[in-house]
Order: sequence, then structure tokens, then C-alpha cells
Amino acid sequence: MIRRVVLVSLMFSGLSLAPVGNHVVADEQALYGYSAASSRNERQWEEKLRAIPSTDNLRAYMQRLSAHPHHVGSLYDKDNAEWIASKFKEFGLDTHIEQFDVLFPTPKERVVELVEGGPKFVAKLQEPALPQDPTSNQQSEQLPTYNAYSIDGDVTAPLVYVNYGVPEDYEQLERLGVSVKGKIVIARYYHSWRGIKPKVAAEHGAVGCLIYSDPHEDGFVQGETFPAGPYRPLDGVQRGSVEDMPIYPGDPLTPGVGATKDAKRLKVEEASTITKIPVLPISYADAQPLLAALTGRVAPDGWRGGLGITYHVGPGPAKVHLKVKSNWEPLKPLYDVIGKIPGSTFPDEWVIRGNHHDAWVNGAEDPISGQVALLEEARALGELLKSGWKPKRTIIYCAWDGEEPGLLGSTEWAEQHYDELRAHAVAYINSDANGRGYFYVEGSHTLEKFSNDIARDVMDPETKLSAWKRDQLHEIANAKSAEQREEIRKRADLRIPALGSGSDYTAFLQHDGVASLNFGFGGEDGGGIYHSIYDDFYWFTHFSDTDFVYSRALAQAGGTAMLRLADADVLPFDFGDFADTVQTYVKELKALAQKSQDEIRERNREIEEGVFQATNDPKRPLVPPSMEAVPPHLNFAPLENALDTLTRSAAEYRKAFDQANANGGAALASASLAEVNKLLIESERKLTNAEGLPNRPWFKHQLYAPGFYTGYAVKTVPAVREAIEQKRWSQADEAIVVVAHVLQEEAALISSAAQKLSAAK
Amino acid sequence: MIRRVVLVSLMFSGLSLAPVGNHVVADEQALYGYSAASSRNERQWEEKLRAIPSTDNLRAYMQRLSAHPHHVGSLYDKDNAEWIASKFKEFGLDTHIEQFDVLFPTPKERVVELVEGGPKFVAKLQEPALPQDPTSNQQSEQLPTYNAYSIDGDVTAPLVYVNYGVPEDYEQLERLGVSVKGKIVIARYYHSWRGIKPKVAAEHGAVGCLIYSDPHEDGFVQGETFPAGPYRPLDGVQRGSVEDMPIYPGDPLTPGVGATKDAKRLKVEEASTITKIPVLPISYADAQPLLAALTGRVAPDGWRGGLGITYHVGPGPAKVHLKVKSNWEPLKPLYDVIGKIPGSTFPDEWVIRGNHHDAWVNGAEDPISGQVALLEEARALGELLKSGWKPKRTIIYCAWDGEEPGLLGSTEWAEQHYDELRAHAVAYINSDANGRGYFYVEGSHTLEKFSNDIARDVMDPETKLSAWKRDQLHEIANAKSAEQREEIRKRADLRIPALGSGSDYTAFLQHDGVASLNFGFGGEDGGGIYHSIYDDFYWFTHFSDTDFVYSRALAQAGGTAMLRLADADVLPFDFGDFADTVQTYVKELKALAQKSQDEIRERNREIEEGVFQATNDPKRPLVPPSMEAVPPHLNFAPLENALDTLTRSAAEYRKAFDQANANGGAALASASLAEVNKLLIESERKLTNAEGLPNRPWFKHQLYAPGFYTGYAVKTVPAVREAIEQKRWSQADEAIVVVAHVLQEEAALISSAAQKLSAAK
Repeated sequence: MIRRVVLVSLMFSGLSLAPVGNHVVADEQALYGYSAASSRNERQWEEKLRAIPSTDNLRAYMQRLSAHPHHVGSLYDKDNAEWIASKFKEFGLDTHIEQFDVLFPTPKERVVELVEGGPKFVAKLQEPALPQDPTSNQQSEQLPTYNAYSIDGDVTAPLVYVNYGVPEDYEQLERLGVSVKGKIVIARYYHSWRGIKPKVAAEHGAVGCLIYSDPHEDGFVQGETFPAGPYRPLDGVQRGSVEDMPIYPGDPLTPGVGATKDAKRLKVEEASTITKIPVLPISYADAQPLLAALTGRVAPDGWRGGLGITYHVGPGPAKVHLKVKSNWEPLKPLYDVIGKIPGSTFPDEWVIRGNHHDAWVNGAEDPISGQVALLEEARALGELLKSGWKPKRTIIYCAWDGEEPGLLGSTEWAEQHYDELRAHAVAYINSDANGRGYFYVEGSHTLEKFSNDIARDVMDPETKLSAWKRDQLHEIANAKSAEQREEIRKRADLRIPALGSGSDYTAFLQHDGVASLNFGFGGEDGGGIYHSIYDDFYWFTHFSDTDFVYSRALAQAGGTAMLRLADADVLPFDFGDFADTVQTYVKELKALAQKSQDEIRERNREIEEGVFQATNDPKRPLVPPSMEAVPPHLNFAPLENALDTLTRSAAEYRKAFDQANANGGAALASASLAEVNKLLIESERKLTNAEGLPNRPWFKHQLYAPGFYTGYAVKTVPAVREAIEQKRWSQADEAIVVVAHVLQEEAALISSAAQKLSAAK
Repeated sequence: MIRRVVLVSLMFSGLSLAPVGNHVVADEQALYGYSAASSRNERQWEEKLRAIPSTDNLRAYMQRLSAHPHHVGSLYDKDNAEWIASKFKEFGLDTHIEQFDVLFPTPKERVVELVEGGPKFVAKLQEPALPQDPTSNQQSEQLPTYNAYSIDGDVTAPLVYVNYGVPEDYEQLERLGVSVKGKIVIARYYHSWRGIKPKVAAEHGAVGCLIYSDPHEDGFVQGETFPAGPYRPLDGVQRGSVEDMPIYPGDPLTPGVGATKDAKRLKVEEASTITKIPVLPISYADAQPLLAALTGRVAPDGWRGGLGITYHVGPGPAKVHLKVKSNWEPLKPLYDVIGKIPGSTFPDEWVIRGNHHDAWVNGAEDPISGQVALLEEARALGELLKSGWKPKRTIIYCAWDGEEPGLLGSTEWAEQHYDELRAHAVAYINSDANGRGYFYVEGSHTLEKFSNDIARDVMDPETKLSAWKRDQLHEIANAKSAEQREEIRKRADLRIPALGSGSDYTAFLQHDGVASLNFGFGGEDGGGIYHSIYDDFYWFTHFSDTDFVYSRALAQAGGTAMLRLADADVLPFDFGDFADTVQTYVKELKALAQKSQDEIRERNREIEEGVFQATNDPKRPLVPPSMEAVPPHLNFAPLENALDTLTRSAAEYRKAFDQANANGGAALASASLAEVNKLLIESERKLTNAEGLPNRPWFKHQLYAPGFYTGYAVKTVPAVREAIEQKRWSQADEAIVVVAHVLQEEAALISSAAQKLSAAK
């Protein structure tokens, strides 16, 4: 679901730190968490596994799965689920389809027209079929262009251009003296998850919201448009969900519980994740006459897109009529495909892998490019089973339905199986759309070392370097400072960014507290077919991973990760990188609080000095800012103390591990490690609490959450960070105590694991 | 001539420094360089002066001077010169017109056409008249759109888009594997002086050059286009000179000497400042079909302009035919108008003021908005003369001809009167096009304090703050760091940037060694009529300083500066700010050398690590850079020692001044100060040497010059800085010695002035 442009650059959190030394282990070649003997054995199975995935199969799977539109509720969605289930079975997985029934509105009426202020214009709201693109003409099966979970509405009002429609844009509008109250806003895609745009617009009093794809972001400004090139054509539209997922994802009617047949459901009017105002997405062909009819202030420099016009803010004189009406009934079925390989030694420890199978239309890139890798991985594991491999732990492969509307399939499943997952889940490994370029990993920092190890064992198809080495060199090339470059060169592991939202890991990580990773390849090929009818086999095989070598590499990475987690003696969690990462967060939070003080103090001083009057151009007046109380100093001590404890316990665990690993890691094969592993499995659970985040209790994780005003992009230590950002100072102080408590508990668990590991013989 | 967008932001050189304390003087109210008694007297005259300029007069002058095209050689150019001379005489100035005869080519044939690679297209090369703009239809009097001093040529070749056409753009082209050898380049205006574009193109083997106005820079992207708004319309073209002025400005045939009737002249073929390849400027309407016909690599991100197309680099398939042929004969007359007010006490000390009167077409903004202020200033001085004021020193007002083609009128005059100016000139004060907004000053740092004092005594018409205060608050608003903001708040004087080139101060400052300032108002109104037929009275009175209050403010600033220099007891040179500024240059140069070492060392390391192979996208390959020798350490000691001596001598002078200024500054009225003033007048001369800069001996000043590859933008300590930038390390070491010597001589002169000032009774 999420659109990745150059995600690799996110592999850094941006703070430089003292380098973490290379850990010297007894046998340098042994896999982390494996005795020398089991490591040798494991390496052989992993190498076998990586030799299996076939680009021919991957191509054939994609052609089959993207042959027709397959959104939630469509015939082909069900057909695909059944086909995937049959493949899983064929590969030897114990497979079933788990069904849920969810709210999924589809378009009934859609109108966008310019009724005043310019030549009368009715938006087309339709993507044309292209003769050379064989699936683009399946109009009767395609979902029309729309934003799912927009409330119904019929409004006519003057238009205001709000740039990306994020909170900072409204601050700028305020300085310009422009209000959106009672207006329809038009925002461009990108710079926030789309659902944030109508949410912030409604908070500011707008009555309707249009979201358009400016050619600056993914159209002709970036390169040739489809079918001549990969970028968004004139009439291309980005569909997508606008459900308020930062409140809770999944079925709007069943927050916190699985949407089973007999689940207790909210009424539609009670669902807080449906938008407050009507929303529609439009193409740049449809947007241009509306934008061209705006006058008023010329849009500020950073607000100007790529259309060959002068961008104005308005309001008006353009007046727009927007009508959105959906079919809200009946509930639609979701088909999650679940395939298991039971564990031979620890059947109650589950290693879970997932990718969604539903799409907005044909979805060759999103999600089929990732789904085919998962499928080929499952085949490879099946082959290993036939060769005698037996995973120690239970492996579960999941092909999710309903990710596009709001992570529905994974969320309902993770809610439905909450207790089991809290008890059994070792980790969840997600992928989604995949492309050509660099390997990216994001996720739980207790698995940072593990994910680096996986990247070291997967080959980049283009350069034949390890994916890890290519990433490292790419990060050196893109480092922001000499200090950062030195850290990249010296730190044992590349940093991985934390997970916000945007794909199916959300419920596992942030609701259930299951350590999670999300990975894939990308960053070399751009494009502008995201969530349009042109995301299809023709586009993918002309402009993306055309020979499927990166789909194969993803299958190799996913399969390796699953095997290594399933077979480890001691689960490969590491707390050194984790504590190091938390330290960067604490530094960031302190810097953020300081910056807020500094900025407000400076602005107050400038107000007193008369800076805003002196620099006010009478022909382009700005509303001056008001004096503001300087923020209080926050008490970071609880967090700093917890961090110290955490760092000590991580060192303790490392020491215990190194001891156990000595002499070929004989102690690592000890049966008494079961207790250690049980604790390790708990380590991510400890980072959640029952209360969840302030005002959004569904989100239990205290370190990672999507931002309330970013939607996808992560806010780490969210309760503290968002309180500071939103200037709720006493809440920030309270949240520090809560998070410190969680980290103290985590440190205690790690210490306890260290002690048990020391005791293992 | 120069186009200022927001020049005020240039008032900083960007380096933060220890604040310079406020100097405590005996009488805080006394003007710097004046005894208490003469200060009181002077203030009265200055206040009278500032009350005189009338916005009605300024408007009437503009209407008269911009009524017809008045470029070099036109009837109305001569007519304007005669009219200005008659006004000077009427005001009481001793006036004559000084004539020179110069090479000034005008268009004979101009062709730009797309002959292959797209629909056949012939460029219009013509700006249409507009019904509402009464002077836009004077086609028979208008110079066609062209670049003066383009060599004749007739070439047909594939086209390459080179962005702004500056050296860094060619580095990028090299990485892209694109050569311009044998090609015609198309560059967009801005980011360098235009003459740099064909120069760098020719250095890289191009055979022709088109320069177009992209709407991103001054067209519809910025706002409404003329006549609906101030920005460049579809067919608007920026004329302008492409003479290689960084070699020498002025008449190409008479470098270093005045272009009098019988001057010894080069042949046209011998003139090194004529371009090596043909050049033409075009509109964006004419550029779009050419750019749209390019394919090849998509232009890098920062290269994309505002036309609604995908920008490509080429080369081709667009093939362009470019033909330029000029009338090179006969020589054209220049009419410099020179008006004098003889000094009553020191007639051999000359204070000079200038602004040009010639334009590319009607030139209401450029240069008439500045010329009318100068004219009204001259009237005000005439009024004072009638009231009994007598300047101590000789005042000379100059209305220059031929600035647009290459600073011709001022350069020939400053060359012709070289010996007199070296002997007599106190300072030269320049202005050019003027607009609405902030006061900007740039120039000799020995006059930094003086120029700050002038800004303190001129009122900003919009805010009624002093121009100085408004500038200070504007700089606080735009400061890049907290440190810079604190310096702005605490330093007694606002920093002024150094002068490069772009207007008539060049020959005075950089050839003759006359301390110079250039000032005016601007920064609030943008526009896109620069050097087009639309720069006229209609445009100016609709979109710029429509009520002429900023022209009046310029007259007030110019008049105040002239009076204060002409009447001072001790000339208001100050060496504290000067030494402080030189210190920033030395720091910058050391940092620049260090940066060059660091960058090359890092790049070599990355080459060895394989960064460039690892990050090379096979679908968009880049040519990897080559290993390069790490630059040697330079010996900055001579410069640092000279700086120490300079700083000491500046303190000595300050101490002597403070003593002389004690007790009402009685010593400042002493006749024995004549010797001090003679030395002060020499202070800028000492910063020049006879040899001039390496490879461009016309430029004598060792601290300030236009960049060899920037054209207008200054390079301070140019011999050292450009040697470092161009990696000529031994030349850098040699230049350090030369500049150190110049600064030691300067310090000796300042010490000597300090001693004489101490001796004054």
C-alpha cells in the first residue's frame, strides 16, 4: 500500500552516535544465535533455499494474479485467494482461508465540477484504457477513482489551494490571512499520508476536500508518462484509503476485535475513522482547470507544482461542486490465506510472514510484486521440507486481503488471534510492493542486528555485491555529514528506521507487540501508476523489475529470514543496537523540547523588536504571529535513568551471550535455553502497555507509532514526542514517566534473560 | 544593468565574528569625521537637502527619459544626454558632455529554427506590442532582441540543454556522459551573469549558444505576467551584453585607455572580450518547442524549469540552426554627462556620483528609476548652493552612457582620466535601477561605517523606520543561525557585501582603485521585464515604486552621502570594519582550501571503496569520477601576519581619531588634517597593484573583483580564491604573498595616517 520512492535513505534516523564495536565471538563464522554446529547445518539449508526461487515462476505468478482487478469484494479477489491457497497446499503448507466481513464502501455517485469563477468544467474522474496495455480496458471490473471511507456529502463552495494539506501548510495560510472555513480545499498528493489531508482540512473548518496528483510529484516533471514512460499520465488518478488509521486501522466497525460474522459492530455513524468531510482524488487533467481558476495570493514558493500555470491560493473565485455518495452495504468478505508449517521442537513459537494480495485495481506492483516473492518463498520452503528440513519453530505464511482500504485483513486477523499471538509470536516479517534498487529494512531494533545479517547474505542482482554492502556504500554516498559517514563506515550494523504504518505489520507490532520487520527492494525506478489502472503487468514488465531478479532477491531475503528465526538455538534478538537506538530517541526528544523553547523565545523577541512589522510588504501583507508562553523545562530524568538501566542490561545480555557462545557455542544447544527464548519472545510485548497511547488506545506500543498528523511516517516515543510537538507540556512530562516505566520493565526482562542464559550449560 | 531580486540578503558575507563594540566618542551626536561644531552645521544642510526631492519631479523625469528607446547610438540616447546636461546646468552645475566612440554591434540577421527532431519551427525573436502599454509599439526605434558582442556565426547542430550553463552544470553533464562538443547549447538565464554562459559553453567545445528566460525564474511561475502582472510574458526576451567583462569591461577595442576619437584601437578580431561562439537570447515561447524536442536523459532535479514539459538534456534529436550577424560599423558615440560643483576648500579632492542613462529599450526601471534620483539630487544640491552652502570638496555628478553593452561610458571615462582620478578621487558613489523595498549597500569596507551612518539618516517610506533599522530587522528575520542573528543585533554596523561587477563602479573601484559604494532600494517587487520592451513607464507605474517614494529615498540617500563626504573635516574612512572584513576573507580562504582537501580525499576514498560502482543505476548510468591528487597545504602565514598588522594599524587609527575627537573634536578642524585626508584618499589605491590579477591585468584591485566564472558576483581576494577554486595551488601560494604585501602597505599607510592625526592640534 505504501508508496516508496527512495526508502533506503530512511535507513538512518539522522543522529550520529559513538560507534558500536564489532563483537568478537568465538567462531566468527557462526550465525548469531546458533552454535557452531547448528550454524553449519543452517547455512547449508539457507543456501539451498536461496537457489530455489525462479524468475519464470515469479513472472507467471504476477501475470496470473494481476490479470484482473482484484479489490476487496471483487470476484477475482476471492479467486486469487483460492488460487494462492491451492499453491500453498501444493507446496506442502497446512492451509486455510480465514474469512472476515468488513465495511467497505464503493462509489455510487461522484461529481466534481467548476460552477463559478471560470469556464464551466465537469471533471472526467475516469482513467482511459490504452490500446497497448491489455488490462487497462477492464472497465466493468475496475473500481472507479475514489477515496475509500470518505463520508457521503454534497457541497458547493469556493476553492482554496492548501499545498500538501499538512498542518504547516495551514500555519502558512494563517499568515497569509486565508481561512478554509466553509471552503472546499484542493491538496496535492505526497508529503503526508493521504488520509491526513481531509482530516486536517476538516479540523480547520473545510467542507470538502479534493486530492490531486501534481505532475511535479509523479507526473511529467519526473519523466516520460505512461505508456511512453513510467510516470503518471494526464488522466491518471491515485485511489486510496482515507480512513483515519492513526486512530485505529482495520474494519471501522470492529475496533480491537476480529470482524467475524457475529462480532459486535458499531453503526457506521459511530465509526470514528470515517472522514468528517467528503473527499475525492482527481487527476492533474481534472485539477488544472480548477487551479487555474483560483486568484488571490500567488502560492508561496514551495507550494508551486509542475502545471504550466501560476499557482494561486484563492479562496475562489473558483467555486466547486463536490458530491460523493457510496454504497455502504452490504459488508464485504475478506479472504486471508493462512499456511502453516508446524515446528518440530517448539511448535508454540510462531514465526510469521505476510504480504497482502488485494489491490486497488490490477496491482502488479502493489502488491503483487511482493506477493509473488512470498509465494515463491513458500514453494522454496516446501522444497526444503521434501529434502528433509524440519523447522524447530512453527512457520506461518499469510496472504492478506483488504490491506488497501485500511490494513483490514491483517488487522482483523491480529485482533482475532490477539491472545495466541501475544503468547506465541516470535516475530512478524512483512513485505509489500517490491522494485528495482536497494534493499531496505525497517522495524524493531531488537532485530536490527538480525536484519543486517540477512542483508549480508542476500546478493544484489545488479551489482553482485551483498545487499548489505550495496546499502552501506549507498549510505556513504548520501551521508549528510562527515560524522554520519564515519558512523556508517565504522558501526557494525547499518541503522534501520522504525516502523510507522502503511502496511500489514501495523497490527502485529503496534497492537499485539510482536517484533516486526518490513523489507524489500526499491529506489532505482520511479513511476506514477500507484493505485491507478496502469499499475499492471504491462507497466511492471516495461518499467520496473522487468526480469524479476529483485522479486527473486526478495524471496531469498524473506526465506532466509524465516529459516533463521525458525531454526535458531537462541532467538537472534540483540539489545545493544536497541539501547543505542533508544538513546538517539532520548537525545532527539531533548533537542526537540529545547528547540521549541528556543524558537518561541526567539519569535517573542522578534515580535517585541518589531521584526514582523518591519518586514511586512504592504502589497503582500502577512498576519503577524502572536506572543506565546515559553515552554517549561521537562523532566527527562526518568527516561535517562531508564535508558541507563536498559544499556546496562543490554551489556549484561551481550556478555552472557558471548560466554554461552564460547567454545563453539556448546551452551547454545542446551535445552535449558527454552526459558531464555520465552523471555526473548516477550521482549517486544514489554514495550507495549494495556492503556495504549493517549487518545488512541488501540496503539499499544510505546516506542513506535504512525504520527497522528503524518499517518504513515513514524513517531518514535510517540506519547512524548507528539505531546512536545503539540505543546501539551504536562502530558509530555506524564508520558516520560510511562515510557520510562516500560523501558525499566524491558531492562528487567533483558537482565532476567541474561541470567538464564548465563546459567545455561 | 544588474538585476536585483532580493539584494538585501547579500548584506552579509555569511561568516560570524566577534562583535565589534560601539566606539565611545566625546560627543555621541557628532557625525563621524566632523567636529561638534561642523557636525551641527552639516546636519542642518543635510536635513534641508532631504526635504527637497519631489516625487512629482521624479515621475516627470521618468516619463520624459523613458518616452522612447534610448540605447547607445540611438537618437533619443543623445537627446536624453543633452536634456540631462541642460538640467544639470539649470541646477547650477558646471556641465559638459564628454564623447567617446566605441564598438557597438547591432543585429543584422538573426535566425533560430528547429530543423530536425521535431515539428519544423522558426523562432519569432520578437516582443509584441500591447494595446494598453503606450510605448511598447515603438518597433522602429527598438533594438531587436539580441546579445551584444556575440560573434557572427551560422551553425546547425544538435541541441543540448545545459541548465544555467555554469561550470558545475558541465561537471554534471560529464557525469551524465553528455558532451556539448560540436553542439548548440541552450541555457536558462540567471545563476550567473549571462556572458558566462557562452564563455563556458565555448570552453567545452559548443558551437552556438541560446539563452532563454524560463518561466521558473521570472515568468508565470513567479506570478501574473505582464500586462496582468509584473512578470515576463510568453514572448518577453532579456537582451543583454555577453562581452567577456571579467577580462576587461568597456569598449572591446580600447582596453585600458579612453576610446577617444584618436585612441589606438584593436581590430575587432583582436578583441578578446567578444564571444567565441554565436549567442542569441530567446523567449520561453520560442524555447519551448526546442526543449520539447530534446530526448535523452531526463534533466536532473535542479535543472527542471517551469514549462509544462519533461525537461531532457539531449543531445538532440532536436537540431537547431542558429544564425547571428551584426552591423559592426561604424563606431557609435557615447555621451557621458559630467556636472561639477567646485570645492571651496579642497578643490583637488573629488567626490563622484554616477548612474547610467542609456537603456536596452525604454528602460524605465533600468536605469531611469536610478537616473531620476540622481537628477533630483543634483537639483537639491543646486538649491543648497543657492542658499549659501559651499562644499569643501569638488562634487562631480555623472550620467553615464553605454552601461548596458559593457559599462562603456564609465569605463572609458575612468580610463581616460586615470591619472587625475588616482590623484584626486575621494570616493565614487553609484546607483542603478531602483525599486520598492529594502535599502542595500555594497562596496569598499573602509566606507562600511560611513554607509551605515547614511542608512541611519534615511527614512524608509513604507515603515517610517530608518532604512538602517528596517534592514537590521530584515536581516534578523532572515538570519541563517542564532550566532548570525546575535551578531546582527550586537555589531555596531551591518556588514556590507563587496562589489563584483554589473554596474558603473567597476572601473572606478577595480581599475582606478577609488573607494566605491553602490546603493539603492529593492527586494519587495519582483518582475520579469528586465531588458525587454516592457521595462517602461507603464510597467513601472503599475508594478514597482508606483508613487516614486523610493526614488525620493534614493535621492535622499545619495545626496546625504555626497554632502557628508564633501564637507567632512576628516574623511569618514574607518579601518576597524575593514580589518574585521578582511579577517572573514582569510578565514573563508583557509576553510575553502581545507574543504578542497577534504572533498578530494573523501572522493578518492569513495572511489576506492567502490561507492560509485555500487550506486550506479544501469538504466541511468553515470560516469564515475577519477582519482585526484589531494591538494597541498598552502602557506597562509603571510596573509595572517599582514592581517595582524592591519588590525593593529586600524586600532591605532581609531585611537588617534578618538583623541582628535575629544573635547568637541577641536583638533578635527585643524588645517593640518589636509595631510591626513591625502593619506585617507590613498587608502583604496593601496589595495591595487600595477600588475593586476593573474591573466586579467585590467583588474588592479587585490581584494575585490567579479569572478572569472561568475561575471557579476564578487570574488574577494580574487587571485587567491580563484587559484584555490581552480586548483592552481602554486599560484595560490604566490598570490597569498602578493596580497599580503598589499595589505602590509595598506597597514603602513593607515599607521602613517594615525600618526599624522595624533599630531594634529
